[in-house]
Amino acid sequence: MNNTDDLPGNWGRWGDDDELGTLNLITDEVRARAAREVRTGRSVSLAVPIEPAPVYSGPFGPQSAEISPVQQVVAYTGSPAFATADVITVTNHHTKSTHLDALAHIVHDGKVYPGRPLGEAVSMGGVRHGSTTAFAAGIVTRGVLLDFAADGPVPVDRSITAQDLEAAEERHGVRVESGDALVVRFGWVETRYRGNPSPGVDIDAVRWMHDRGVSLYAGDLGDAHPPQFGSPSALHGVALPLMGMPLIDAVDADELASVCAELGRYSFMFVAAPPRIHGLTGVPVNPVALF
Amino acid sequence: MNNTDDLPGNWGRWGDDDELGTLNLITDEVRARAAREVRTGRSVSLAVPIEPAPVYSGPFGPQSAEISPVQQVVAYTGSPAFATADVITVTNHHTKSTHLDALAHIVHDGKVYPGRPLGEAVSMGGVRHGSTTAFAAGIVTRGVLLDFAADGPVPVDRSITAQDLEAAEERHGVRVESGDALVVRFGWVETRYRGNPSPGVDIDAVRWMHDRGVSLYAGDLGDAHPPQFGSPSALHGVALPLMGMPLIDAVDADELASVCAELGRYSFMFVAAPPRIHGLTGVPVNPVALF
Amino acid sequence: MNNTDDLPGNWGRWGDDDELGTLNLITDEVRARAAREVRTGRSVSLAVPIEPAPVYSGPFGPQSAEISPVQQVVAYTGSPAFATADVITVTNHHTKSTHLDALAHIVHDGKVYPGRPLGEAVSMGGVRHGSTTAFAAGIVTRGVLLDFAADGPVPVDRSITAQDLEAAEERHGVRVESGDALVVRFGWVETRYRGNPSPGVDIDAVRWMHDRGVSLYAGDLGDAHPPQFGSPSALHGVALPLMGMPLIDAVDADELASVCAELGRYSFMFVAAPPRIHGLTGVPVNPVALF
Amino acid sequence: MNNTDDLPGNWGRWGDDDELGTLNLITDEVRARAAREVRTGRSVSLAVPIEPAPVYSGPFGPQSAEISPVQQVVAYTGSPAFATADVITVTNHHTKSTHLDALAHIVHDGKVYPGRPLGEAVSMGGVRHGSTTAFAAGIVTRGVLLDFAADGPVPVDRSITAQDLEAAEERHGVRVESGDALVVRFGWVETRYRGNPSPGVDIDAVRWMHDRGVSLYAGDLGDAHPPQFGSPSALHGVALPLMGMPLIDAVDADELASVCAELGRYSFMFVAAPPRIHGLTGVPVNPVALF
Repeated sequence: MNNTDDLPGNWGRWGDDDELGTLNLITDEVRARAAREVRTGRSVSLAVPIEPAPVYSGPFGPQSAEISPVQQVVAYTGSPAFATADVITVTNHHTKSTHLDALAHIVHDGKVYPGRPLGEAVSMGGVRHGSTTAFAAGIVTRGVLLDFAADGPVPVDRSITAQDLEAAEERHGVRVESGDALVVRFGWVETRYRGNPSPGVDIDAVRWMHDRGVSLYAGDLGDAHPPQFGSPSALHGVALPLMGMPLIDAVDADELASVCAELGRYSFMFVAAPPRIHGLTGVPVNPVALF
Repeated sequence: MNNTDDLPGNWGRWGDDDELGTLNLITDEVRARAAREVRTGRSVSLAVPIEPAPVYSGPFGPQSAEISPVQQVVAYTGSPAFATADVITVTNHHTKSTHLDALAHIVHDGKVYPGRPLGEAVSMGGVRHGSTTAFAAGIVTRGVLLDFAADGPVPVDRSITAQDLEAAEERHGVRVESGDALVVRFGWVETRYRGNPSPGVDIDAVRWMHDRGVSLYAGDLGDAHPPQFGSPSALHGVALPLMGMPLIDAVDADELASVCAELGRYSFMFVAAPPRIHGLTGVPVNPVALF
Repeated sequence: MNNTDDLPGNWGRWGDDDELGTLNLITDEVRARAAREVRTGRSVSLAVPIEPAPVYSGPFGPQSAEISPVQQVVAYTGSPAFATADVITVTNHHTKSTHLDALAHIVHDGKVYPGRPLGEAVSMGGVRHGSTTAFAAGIVTRGVLLDFAADGPVPVDRSITAQDLEAAEERHGVRVESGDALVVRFGWVETRYRGNPSPGVDIDAVRWMHDRGVSLYAGDLGDAHPPQFGSPSALHGVALPLMGMPLIDAVDADELASVCAELGRYSFMFVAAPPRIHGLTGVPVNPVALF
Repeated sequence: MNNTDDLPGNWGRWGDDDELGTLNLITDEVRARAAREVRTGRSVSLAVPIEPAPVYSGPFGPQSAEISPVQQVVAYTGSPAFATADVITVTNHHTKSTHLDALAHIVHDGKVYPGRPLGEAVSMGGVRHGSTTAFAAGIVTRGVLLDFAADGPVPVDRSITAQDLEAAEERHGVRVESGDALVVRFGWVETRYRGNPSPGVDIDAVRWMHDRGVSLYAGDLGDAHPPQFGSPSALHGVALPLMGMPLIDAVDADELASVCAELGRYSFMFVAAPPRIHGLTGVPVNPVALF
């Protein structure tokens, strides 16, 4: 991918040192719009549950375990024990973990958003540019769900296009505006990420997100797997590194879709406040939709 | 502590299998009350930043590091690199991490809330009762700040009492009601947890929280350090194990106090949505106050 | 176990601060005797192979894995990569890992060898007494194999007794002397530690080891599983904490038995030199027999 | 480095699937020669001690720690505790750890020894070619010490050359032969790897090792730091990837030098038997010299 001329991008738009990317689009006005969505306090989690795998299970424990994003060591404190505690090892970009990608996660032509050389931004010693530090205060904005799975999962050979997004807006009676978090439902929570091919959004859909000013993408799927070689993945290959748009991978939007259908509205307050750990390339998150 | 007759407690109140404890007090009505607090969308994080320590920093890197709750391994993916990724090791109950204690964290007389024998609830293989699974959907309720540090940090030899809490309500023009999350500010963010003694709340304050129906305690301090031997710590020794009240340790309420003072109101919507990792004894969290 | 009067023990024998236990029996003379065993340089490993489990295997990787003592994170260094590196998480006392138990591993009546209170010896901050620091220089001594599986595995309901050990000496034409490492083969490498019951040595066998001056026990089995409640496990409950005898758990002595049978001699030089990591309760080791 | 024609190399010498590299030079005859070195059983460790850093040290513990190759979580088992246990995280290629580099550790022109494409040999899922599996049985051979620090540390601006190696042989009355492990002492144990420049061996010294048939290099230093750009590091850039020679980094040969001087002989039996963990790019090791 040498020619990025016709790809949507924001390098330079908010300066050469910018680390927020499209989160810059979340203004006070956007947050006020988000606040107006909250009426009853009903809340819905968009995260899949993670069952940690025990690092040690003893001679009479299980012999094998499902591979988990989280490994756990549990301990008693004191003798007799007055407390219990644990230490966990977390794989930040695990396909079975709902997680928020920082902008330094993806390298484009030796650089990370907005054009910082990889070696300057990320080394063994840590991430100096484009890390989860950008999420320190939590992300609070308006969220919009576009649901493509009301009648069943999106087929594996179908891509979500810009036209599909607009048709969904029409169907739901909602319009994605600048600064909104876009939640997309493919209906693939049960079947995704088990080695099988899966559908995704296409580059025109990402161009549409750029035009509309989407601040963050959260989907139960995002890019098609396997990626089609020769063209970059629309979200991980273009939206994140070139537009500076954070992605929440592996959400579960099933309950959200039910609630939206029940309430007859597809917009809500959206809060994604992962642990305030700076300097990471990504971090597990439990996004919450508030109605 | 053999005689718990005169200590506030909830064992049995919500059944023998209950894992929610005082989170049971967060009803739809409580959440609706919380929602009414959101007007402008202004949000404040209550978490201290965590700077991860590199597991490896190379021959020319630093030789020592501040002990951190998070250890990080950073890696490039692909050659040339097309992505970066990291794996972190997290100490869930670290004094430098804003974290949410699950009910199985504290053992009372060989048992955890609400009377489950320790060995049944927690083993090397994981936590089967009273874990972070209770926080799966995120905690959304009304929050109230009681600030005792407007004129400087609470002195080391002072305890916060029930009377102090009521006086603060009076001062702030707010009243803690059933289901509310109580945020307490001692003004100790800069100085706490460095081995020095520190003040805390007393048992009468906890009794008051019990009477008022506080669902969750979040403070920049909580129990006095070192604990006064002979009597249990009010929050970790009584509120958590006997009342089943989750605690958020090590919050930073300084910005929150500024905003409350500026807006002239000390109640807000409170969202604590840590990563949806089940089966832990605690988990880092970035609590957010929404105005 | 309140009455330890009639159990073999060494508390006080080498002083109250001793951390070597029966390794004190390995004198220069013992090492010289060991050296005389080396003639051809043929070497045999007594360790089972450990296949690390990947912490991350990607969307197209396996979905479950055998639980392993070692978790691995692999990374490329540089872009393009000029090196590869890894970080591993190791469970020191894993049943599938050939490992050397330090003396602080087992608590007897609130104390560790030779009578140090647990809280003084071992805390969350590390092990201050009885750790792997005792193995810093490597263990080099004479080894003797007593093989009970020449005709098939020891049955699950059989214990190895002092008489059995003497009969094996007779059979092999070898005599265990003070300072020797004793290697015992039950023939259980394939079937052990999968939750099933397994045989072990009895307390008289341990008394015999005490009388003979065994410095270290290495077996493909050791204590019967499950332990017979009411009496302490002979090796982990008595030999290690009371005699101060380090144990190597989960060895594979099958190839060793073949070589001994082929050469017609059951003694050899024995080298156990685990990584020189101080302050642990145990450590993986690859014991080597040299002929 | 496109032209490797005049660099010493072994790609293809032992076949395209070879994983042993120069360990192929350790024949039965070499081991028998090694055995003849053992007379008294005196043993010397060549490993530096590693003090693990506690992952958690509590509110009254230290606030900072020296960066360590090993992070430790210590736990009590049972309540009251009947055992203690720990889990450690190990950085395999740490400058403060005496460790054995596997052949897949270094990439040459997109390939690892003996010409296997990087992506085939090493991925996030593990190391499939050139890993520590090659060390499964332990490395047992003859060792030779060449000491350049009898009169003080080698100056930072000096390289060890082939002539230096031969002069040392002369001085010590020893001759490095095919299959020997070469131990080199710069006298830098106290001062190395703290970010300061340090001396190393030059490419002619490595050529000499190739000609002599050295099976393994172990030094208190190896390659000069920082590397001289434009030319590959002699050991890590040539010997390991092109000759397939495993390296033991960061040894402590000070005591070894004393013993050699005292005994008047610079050859010994050499045993390096790291934990039998397959599939790693490197592993901590405690090499032992037996006299």
